[in-house]
Amino acid sequence: MTTTAITNIGSLVTNDPALGEGPLGLVQDAAVVIEDGTIAWVGPTANAPATDERFDADRRAVIPGFVDSHSHLVFAGDRTQEFNARMSGRNYSAGGIRTTVAATRAATDAELEANLLRHLHEARRQGTTTFETKSGYGLTVEDEARALRIAAAHTEEVTYLGAHIVSPDYTEDPAAYVDLVTGPMLDACAPYARWVDVFCEKGAFDGDQARAVLTAGRAKGLIPRIHANQLSHGPGVQLGVELGAASADHCTHLTDADVDALANSETVATLLPGAEFSTRAQWPDARRLIDAGATVALSTDCNPGSSYTSSMPFCIALAVRDMGMTPDEALWSATAGGARALRRTDIGRLAPGSRADLALLDAPSHVHLAYRPGVPLVSAVWQKGERVH
Amino acid sequence: MTTTAITNIGSLVTNDPALGEGPLGLVQDAAVVIEDGTIAWVGPTANAPATDERFDADRRAVIPGFVDSHSHLVFAGDRTQEFNARMSGRNYSAGGIRTTVAATRAATDAELEANLLRHLHEARRQGTTTFETKSGYGLTVEDEARALRIAAAHTEEVTYLGAHIVSPDYTEDPAAYVDLVTGPMLDACAPYARWVDVFCEKGAFDGDQARAVLTAGRAKGLIPRIHANQLSHGPGVQLGVELGAASADHCTHLTDADVDALANSETVATLLPGAEFSTRAQWPDARRLIDAGATVALSTDCNPGSSYTSSMPFCIALAVRDMGMTPDEALWSATAGGARALRRTDIGRLAPGSRADLALLDAPSHVHLAYRPGVPLVSAVWQKGERVH
Repeated sequence: MTTTAITNIGSLVTNDPALGEGPLGLVQDAAVVIEDGTIAWVGPTANAPATDERFDADRRAVIPGFVDSHSHLVFAGDRTQEFNARMSGRNYSAGGIRTTVAATRAATDAELEANLLRHLHEARRQGTTTFETKSGYGLTVEDEARALRIAAAHTEEVTYLGAHIVSPDYTEDPAAYVDLVTGPMLDACAPYARWVDVFCEKGAFDGDQARAVLTAGRAKGLIPRIHANQLSHGPGVQLGVELGAASADHCTHLTDADVDALANSETVATLLPGAEFSTRAQWPDARRLIDAGATVALSTDCNPGSSYTSSMPFCIALAVRDMGMTPDEALWSATAGGARALRRTDIGRLAPGSRADLALLDAPSHVHLAYRPGVPLVSAVWQKGERVH
Repeated sequence: MTTTAITNIGSLVTNDPALGEGPLGLVQDAAVVIEDGTIAWVGPTANAPATDERFDADRRAVIPGFVDSHSHLVFAGDRTQEFNARMSGRNYSAGGIRTTVAATRAATDAELEANLLRHLHEARRQGTTTFETKSGYGLTVEDEARALRIAAAHTEEVTYLGAHIVSPDYTEDPAAYVDLVTGPMLDACAPYARWVDVFCEKGAFDGDQARAVLTAGRAKGLIPRIHANQLSHGPGVQLGVELGAASADHCTHLTDADVDALANSETVATLLPGAEFSTRAQWPDARRLIDAGATVALSTDCNPGSSYTSSMPFCIALAVRDMGMTPDEALWSATAGGARALRRTDIGRLAPGSRADLALLDAPSHVHLAYRPGVPLVSAVWQKGERVH
């Protein structure tokens, strides 16, 4: 079995306080040893054991690969015109999610898979080594199931989101659509998914409907997560906490009771600044959540409508500038925080036994991800110990 | 002489309304022919003349290379700790520009040149084919002259900014420093520079001092540009217009009279959103300037203190999100606008006779630069007809 050492790391983020300084477990002049896709050893370069191969990091920073715990990557088409009109102050009869639903239904399996892979590779070049993705642009039994089947071929973190919006085919009878989502559609989708999700929001699904969707999914062995409190106050966050959701995502409009609920639960608050950036919306208040004791994750929400970015570094820069996070907190949330939101202990950190998912930065420190916004700083990526970029 | 055609361009921005649709002169299904570093032909792919070489753009977008008309790239050191403290709400006895002055003075020529080249290559990979850069971190006759000498080896657009701040050596006698800047330092620097610049701001140079600096430079054949109205209202913009500055840079705090002065002049308003992003400052109002009839350029202000980004796409995304620009206007300002700010007619456009500086995007349209914020979309770059990325 080949062993590889990455040596001469100027600054290593382990996310393990036992291994180094502070919550990020920072180690200077560090080395890591990879064996069989796993981190076998972490310590000072001077003490690194002999290995078959060596990679010299040239005093640059190494971080755990990003864990993007919220994306919508099984889709077809794009919404350039809608974006352009919105940003140019022009009227545009935007179909919103329905535009993407129509394009996705019309696409072949091969087209959907190629588009997924294109975005997956794009994200990987930017340091993302784990990504969650969802259905939600099919909204028929067949189209939702095929979205999840395609996703499951490329990631372990697959989420059933038949309850993204009420299908255009059921506009007159939303209750019948909820029956479909919690019945035959769930039966067809559950084998491919780990998670069940619902968009709990005015115009999508109310608290009772969201409860029905998550409860039905849970009965089929799926773990709940929820799109909650994005556009307005609502019952989503507290429902998620009550039902043991791994994550409540967006969390833009929160009452004190919502913050308390998150802080006193295992439910992670996943913040998605790309959405607020691309829709010129109010920023979520990460500071308030962290100060209250909630666990915060950062993710891209990559989707063609409201947040068409695959860049975790960009999300970090926004979180630092506009959401009150320190550069350290933002890095933690984009790696270890994402892992918590996916209930994973094998990723989001670089400690002996962790999966060898790492990104090398063209910078002396992880702080540069916020300090140098927009600059592509990820210069090499390892996934399960294999160099993939 | 080898001729090259770039064919099958899904969407070509020429910035020449005579060649295509709208102010960007958009051409669909386009080709360009490059000969001797220059654009020789533009038109539909179907009509493209025979050439020695062909590059298939695969229906992706091609734009003129970015013209970054404001950067500060001759420096040493970085200011990570200062940035980290500012963004983390911690006190830090920041030396500001002085920190960089000390590091720059202490660096060897080779170190300064290597740092310049590193950032230049980084910018080029992101589509920048022309960049202006300045002195301003030396603040002695020798250190300013060597900064400009090093810059002049790598760009035609070199700016003498001895008047960046009052040198720490002259804190007690700013007038003597202005005498130095307008006397012996100018004599030593003028041979390397095309432009003279001054930071007109409280704590830097007032209106009378700025006038002295620009007037002295002009007498030596340098063309004025000015750092104006960044942190507060001040005389900078109107002074720049009065003295025929090619550009007034920052323009964050403007009175109606300032906007009128710009709109009725040849002085370009160069906006630098990276600075407002990285210092959490108020955004300049591009919409107000454009609606009044002023010419607007977008640039990075790349420097280690207040805007450590080299990414023109990032600046475009910010300008669209936060400064009221449409995606079309932002693209124009980052290319043709920058060319205007440098009084160049050979760059910033792709028309027969223009310099063959182009960027190929991994996207079907230039709108994606704003629609996909943070994503590195530049997939190939030609400079004077030569593929450099």
